[in-house]
Amino acid sequence: MANNEGIDNSFLDTVKFDAKGLVPAIVQDHETGKVLMMAWMNRESLEMTLERKKACYWSRSRNKLWLKGESSGNMQDVYDILIDCDGDTLILKVSQIGGACHVGYHSCFYRRVLENGNMEICDTLMFDPEEVYGKKS
Amino acid sequence: MANNEGIDNSFLDTVKFDAKGLVPAIVQDHETGKVLMMAWMNRESLEMTLERKKACYWSRSRNKLWLKGESSGNMQDVYDILIDCDGDTLILKVSQIGGACHVGYHSCFYRRVLENGNMEICDTLMFDPEEVYGKKS
Repeated sequence: MANNEGIDNSFLDTVKFDAKGLVPAIVQDHETGKVLMMAWMNRESLEMTLERKKACYWSRSRNKLWLKGESSGNMQDVYDILIDCDGDTLILKVSQIGGACHVGYHSCFYRRVLENGNMEICDTLMFDPEEVYGKKS
Repeated sequence: MANNEGIDNSFLDTVKFDAKGLVPAIVQDHETGKVLMMAWMNRESLEMTLERKKACYWSRSRNKLWLKGESSGNMQDVYDILIDCDGDTLILKVSQIGGACHVGYHSCFYRRVLENGNMEICDTLMFDPEEVYGKKS
């Protein structure tokens, strides 16, 4: 019975980056298990995360390395990294300072679906994005 | 202060499918918060999931709708669906029958990274895949 499936290789050699060189990372509070966000990592941001124990991603919109919290101060201390069976998705277990979401909520997943197909807010607002990032012009 | 950001539209109109018509869904145990897997959904599988309250995905390897558990019996009853700020990632909160992972573990994320860059098993084996899916020829 397979019980030590796929632990013979090193972690970095096991990660399967997609055609764009990216892998999705699910970011979860290391104590409560609450999912805070999903972001994308390239090999460089993953290596930086492993080294510094601070979450670092690849920003697909800005096309650059993104040390989470570099603008907002809402850094993520990384406690654990898990990898899935296919090697193409990661979990980062973190301690989140402030809120994870640029809209100001604790989690980016602050909306839930209602029975009628509409949505409702299901999370706590942690900060005012205009105060943290400045007013949109 | 934005506190009801983005709940004016219907859920289905808010989901942003990627260029391939897919959106990633993080699958989480609705009671413990444990992340079990990540899978991809197209609009049809999402509509089917909303209607039946059983998780249905789009299999990128088999290129077809995939009612989770159709081979293994390990279905997922869906209790809640959340959507992130950008509308391009979902969370499904489910009750998992048996194990989620085709390797036999409860979660697909059954390996964690060690300080030395290797990995260790961090999850429970729930079934023998050869018994459930048959022997690989």
